[in-house]
Amino acid sequence: MKNFVFYNHTKILFGKDQITAISDEIPEDSKILMIYGGGSIKENGVYNQVIDAISGFEYYEFGGIEPNPSYEKCMKALEVIDEYDIDFLLAVGGGSVVDATKFIAAAAFFEGEDPWDILSRNEEVVEAMPLGVVLTLPATGSEMNGNSVISRVEYKEKLAFTSLEVMPLFSVLDPQVVESLPKRQISNGVVDAFVHVIEQYLTYPVNAKVQDRMAEGIMLTLIEEGPKVLADPTDYDSASNYMWSATMALNYLIGSGVPQDWSTHNIGHEITALYGVDHAQTLAIVLPGTMKVMQESKKDKIIQYAQRVWGINKGTESEIIDAAIKKTVEFFEMMGIKTRLRDYNIPVTVADEVADRMEQRGDVNIGENKLVGTDEIRKILESRY
Amino acid sequence: MKNFVFYNHTKILFGKDQITAISDEIPEDSKILMIYGGGSIKENGVYNQVIDAISGFEYYEFGGIEPNPSYEKCMKALEVIDEYDIDFLLAVGGGSVVDATKFIAAAAFFEGEDPWDILSRNEEVVEAMPLGVVLTLPATGSEMNGNSVISRVEYKEKLAFTSLEVMPLFSVLDPQVVESLPKRQISNGVVDAFVHVIEQYLTYPVNAKVQDRMAEGIMLTLIEEGPKVLADPTDYDSASNYMWSATMALNYLIGSGVPQDWSTHNIGHEITALYGVDHAQTLAIVLPGTMKVMQESKKDKIIQYAQRVWGINKGTESEIIDAAIKKTVEFFEMMGIKTRLRDYNIPVTVADEVADRMEQRGDVNIGENKLVGTDEIRKILESRY
Repeated sequence: MKNFVFYNHTKILFGKDQITAISDEIPEDSKILMIYGGGSIKENGVYNQVIDAISGFEYYEFGGIEPNPSYEKCMKALEVIDEYDIDFLLAVGGGSVVDATKFIAAAAFFEGEDPWDILSRNEEVVEAMPLGVVLTLPATGSEMNGNSVISRVEYKEKLAFTSLEVMPLFSVLDPQVVESLPKRQISNGVVDAFVHVIEQYLTYPVNAKVQDRMAEGIMLTLIEEGPKVLADPTDYDSASNYMWSATMALNYLIGSGVPQDWSTHNIGHEITALYGVDHAQTLAIVLPGTMKVMQESKKDKIIQYAQRVWGINKGTESEIIDAAIKKTVEFFEMMGIKTRLRDYNIPVTVADEVADRMEQRGDVNIGENKLVGTDEIRKILESRY
Repeated sequence: MKNFVFYNHTKILFGKDQITAISDEIPEDSKILMIYGGGSIKENGVYNQVIDAISGFEYYEFGGIEPNPSYEKCMKALEVIDEYDIDFLLAVGGGSVVDATKFIAAAAFFEGEDPWDILSRNEEVVEAMPLGVVLTLPATGSEMNGNSVISRVEYKEKLAFTSLEVMPLFSVLDPQVVESLPKRQISNGVVDAFVHVIEQYLTYPVNAKVQDRMAEGIMLTLIEEGPKVLADPTDYDSASNYMWSATMALNYLIGSGVPQDWSTHNIGHEITALYGVDHAQTLAIVLPGTMKVMQESKKDKIIQYAQRVWGINKGTESEIIDAAIKKTVEFFEMMGIKTRLRDYNIPVTVADEVADRMEQRGDVNIGENKLVGTDEIRKILESRY
């Protein structure tokens, strides 16, 4: 096991009707800015529950955060913060709203010239406005980590930053929100969470047995519960397991002390940028090829994955690896997510486009062993499995 | 899954030579009281490493914390705190030292008459002195929770309290400390951690799949690595897995949203009080009987445990349960811990003694369903499995 630091101070309020508890979690006399997205929270009742819960505070609203939250929109929130002396941010939404709120929290206290530098120049976030979360879509894990991805429309750039300063003080996870989600968001959410686990697991062994088994436990749960939630989002038990899996998939726990990959995400981000395909869809496109092309360096963990997650015990090493890839693809398809470029009308030339873009930015070589270069990216996107 | 609140803000510094990092974690200008036990840290090099790490601070020492830490000893530490205006506590030791430090931290800021009231009258801990931990013995999980057990010699009482206020700011987990542990402490540590998991797992199903699989993952790891560490404490990989398992076994994570038992611990504490047997030994004595006697209400989870942890798939329900108990006993014995009262020369009359003591204190009925009363306690301690 590698040395590691684990620190996660987000308080989780999990379960039915936990939204009412947030008034005890927000510091007294806070002036709250409630930040949300396109307004689905007004249809599913969450908006009213939150308003009821914070009615004892002075609060303002800022809606309209986009699915890929933009720097431009976030900067408008800063004006509201200034105007009303806001000192607490409450994100009510999915990963995009939470990511935007984190950036706004950091930008509000940023001492430099342009908060964009936090993303483009890795300027340190020394302090940020405190924030809380009411999660409405289990997927990104943003509710229990310090990660945020923001796009700057003007520059066509999508960049990430990480800081413990923007970790939510608390996050409400009420699985009842799953009931009203469109099927596409559930499909995406389950696959996104699954690939988060894979990126921290399918590397090379360092004999980190607890982390491995926790990762496998989350994957087994998503495989069992994902299709059930998709079929019946009112199944509270399955929704609960899906929601807690998505949070545990990216809260630093299973990634502590182990190598991490993230090349599937890196390549996927480029495909989203080029062709506007949903994030989770790009992961489903890229992962099988990554497993196929990088199988030599990932062999031991792919075989462990095959055995423990899919119960594949027979065959040569190569047959076991192929069977594991097949099972993974079948799972994504069962979740309603296609895995081939042609399913999304993306030309095979995307392989060159992605490789060129990443080369230009110096973003190769990637992966746990820095073995994924432009050649590998091409092979991954062109691979037949 | 039940509703739950999960909150754990202890920062973990895990791995080789992490002790040097504590100087960055202790607030500047702190006046530190370093608290330790019988002096084994002076033999294994930990004492010198800690002294080196805190040499930039003003610090004082308080040694001699006992294996069952006493109220009387803790009260003496308060005098040192007053005398030198101490404002930070550094526990260097195993669970006993950490538990003592937590009580001292709470007592230092206690506004009532006698800090013993925190234990005997559940007086709330409103504020506590900040504390950090350098762990030298993986076992109790105290390094990443707010629990503490303190004995008052004068009254022959051993009581517990829990408060988020006494949760360590940081804990250093360097698996190299395992090298110099006596075998008996490793045996006890592995069994203690294992039974912590069992108490949060072997109850009744609430369809909490992530928690169940994480619990199973910790148990599988302890079963695999425990005997290896016992045979060779210098095996760093196995020591790492043992150490992280013990911490994860009792840091609120696997217990979130699920019923918990703790009757084995309750009964075990009485046996320790009556016959001075090691804590982990009492757990090994009580658990098999608990599984046997309470099997009807625990049936579903015992069968899941049998299948997933021990690979027992064949037989009637009753045969599977018996096989799971047998495997558990074999594991404890492989770890060098005997499981029968006669192994410790404890008379069978202990069953009545324990039942009477618990009845007098109103500590029945216990367990996840409050089904363990005096009759069950007698049956558990007299059971043949």
